[in-house]
Amino acid sequence: MEIILAKKYGFCFGVKRAIKIAEKSPNSSTTGPLIHNNEEINRLKNNFNVTTLKDISTIEPNQKAIIRTHGITKQDFFSLKAKNVDLIDATCPYVTNLQKICEKMSEEGYDIVIFGDENHPEVKGAKSYVKSRVIVILNVDELRRVNLNNKIAVVSQTTRKIDEFSKIIDFLIRCKKEVRVFNTICNATFDNQEAAKNLAKKADVMLVIGGKNSSNTKQLLIISKEFCENSYLVENEQELEKSWFEGKKICGITAGASTPDWIIAKIISKLREIKV
Amino acid sequence: MEIILAKKYGFCFGVKRAIKIAEKSPNSSTTGPLIHNNEEINRLKNNFNVTTLKDISTIEPNQKAIIRTHGITKQDFFSLKAKNVDLIDATCPYVTNLQKICEKMSEEGYDIVIFGDENHPEVKGAKSYVKSRVIVILNVDELRRVNLNNKIAVVSQTTRKIDEFSKIIDFLIRCKKEVRVFNTICNATFDNQEAAKNLAKKADVMLVIGGKNSSNTKQLLIISKEFCENSYLVENEQELEKSWFEGKKICGITAGASTPDWIIAKIISKLREIKV
Repeated sequence: MEIILAKKYGFCFGVKRAIKIAEKSPNSSTTGPLIHNNEEINRLKNNFNVTTLKDISTIEPNQKAIIRTHGITKQDFFSLKAKNVDLIDATCPYVTNLQKICEKMSEEGYDIVIFGDENHPEVKGAKSYVKSRVIVILNVDELRRVNLNNKIAVVSQTTRKIDEFSKIIDFLIRCKKEVRVFNTICNATFDNQEAAKNLAKKADVMLVIGGKNSSNTKQLLIISKEFCENSYLVENEQELEKSWFEGKKICGITAGASTPDWIIAKIISKLREIKV
Repeated sequence: MEIILAKKYGFCFGVKRAIKIAEKSPNSSTTGPLIHNNEEINRLKNNFNVTTLKDISTIEPNQKAIIRTHGITKQDFFSLKAKNVDLIDATCPYVTNLQKICEKMSEEGYDIVIFGDENHPEVKGAKSYVKSRVIVILNVDELRRVNLNNKIAVVSQTTRKIDEFSKIIDFLIRCKKEVRVFNTICNATFDNQEAAKNLAKKADVMLVIGGKNSSNTKQLLIISKEFCENSYLVENEQELEKSWFEGKKICGITAGASTPDWIIAKIISKLREIKV
């Protein structure tokens, strides 16, 4: 049986990068959970003594702190600097880009509209870089209630959907003279879905690896099933059943955005043992 | 009978302004028809000796030339200047704004997308101010065939519809990192329609003044009829029929974008004579 991995699966670029940074910074603390995956956070703690700070203010001066993928606020950044904390930046570069756009556009006199959830740490961080007027909205109705200048710069939380973003833009261009649109959306999740779909079309059996409570993993299962009825969601190698693979020529593999490569590797290894 | 004029009707701001400029510049020539209305052009010729140049190159040095509402190309501007022609600028300020945006954004390194008809003089003029890459498109399909940079500035011919413009923007924001949208659409036509609608709702009889072959005038008639069945399109005061107004309390008046105020004034004057 041939095993084919989806063209895109699992961790996004920003998460992979953050983990590499953490592995190279043993005995440090992260500003909140580095990523949203407990098994991986435990691994970093056990293997590299990288711990998680619940409250940034508890860090001792001169310690090492890793800024997590979502970034931190400018205020937190400077308060850590003031404490002489050794800061290691694992902010996703897409998030850093968002922060920089917010800062630059506000310096150029634009009102900033952030499409996103104001309680999300990424949005809190981006917002903190705005020096002019900023509003955070999740839909056009919220936007309707605000008075804004004629020069608007619009950005998006990196994980939002482009269709929703487009509705915000449509509203703004109808009433504002200049709307400067920065598509700061990262397509990793959607790329994983697209790749799963393409692979499922040619696979005889599909394995979707990830948490059974992970919404993006479940979404991958739904998409896979649509094109390959023999699709299975598994969390680890113990769940594999030999009968799934009997008589099958191609086994496709995809994984949720919170699934580390080492779990995928274990599953592939087990698949090879099954030898159907 | 009460006569009420629509809140917006007839000539737009840019056309009114151009005519005033022409009246103050007797014995001059205009670079092509000043506006799209022959009666008004004849009036300017008869009363002010303002003639129309069919070909810009035919103008003699040191003569006076009025730049028409749609503007001219940068090349034509400089060739007239080189001839020492005394240039009087009646370009609609909304069109001048469009030209300036094209020039400035191309200087800042943006590829320029103009939503409009490439054969229209306004678009030819705007395009001539672009120093970088420029493409003129009328729909998304045309846009799909072009390779563009990641930094795009988008403008529109002033008379285009915002819904169509929005589709172009929607396409661009999905594939480009920065889309700088300038809503250069002038709402004069749509404002006339909105005002006609509001007036028709309370009028007993509506007069729509304008050319019977004018598409925007016919559009006003359709809108008026929807809310006031006694709506009539007239080109001049001779066409008024007394019976239309008998027993009516409110007569609403609107006029197409190419209808000069003096034609409207003649009709109002005749209406007062009718005295119903």
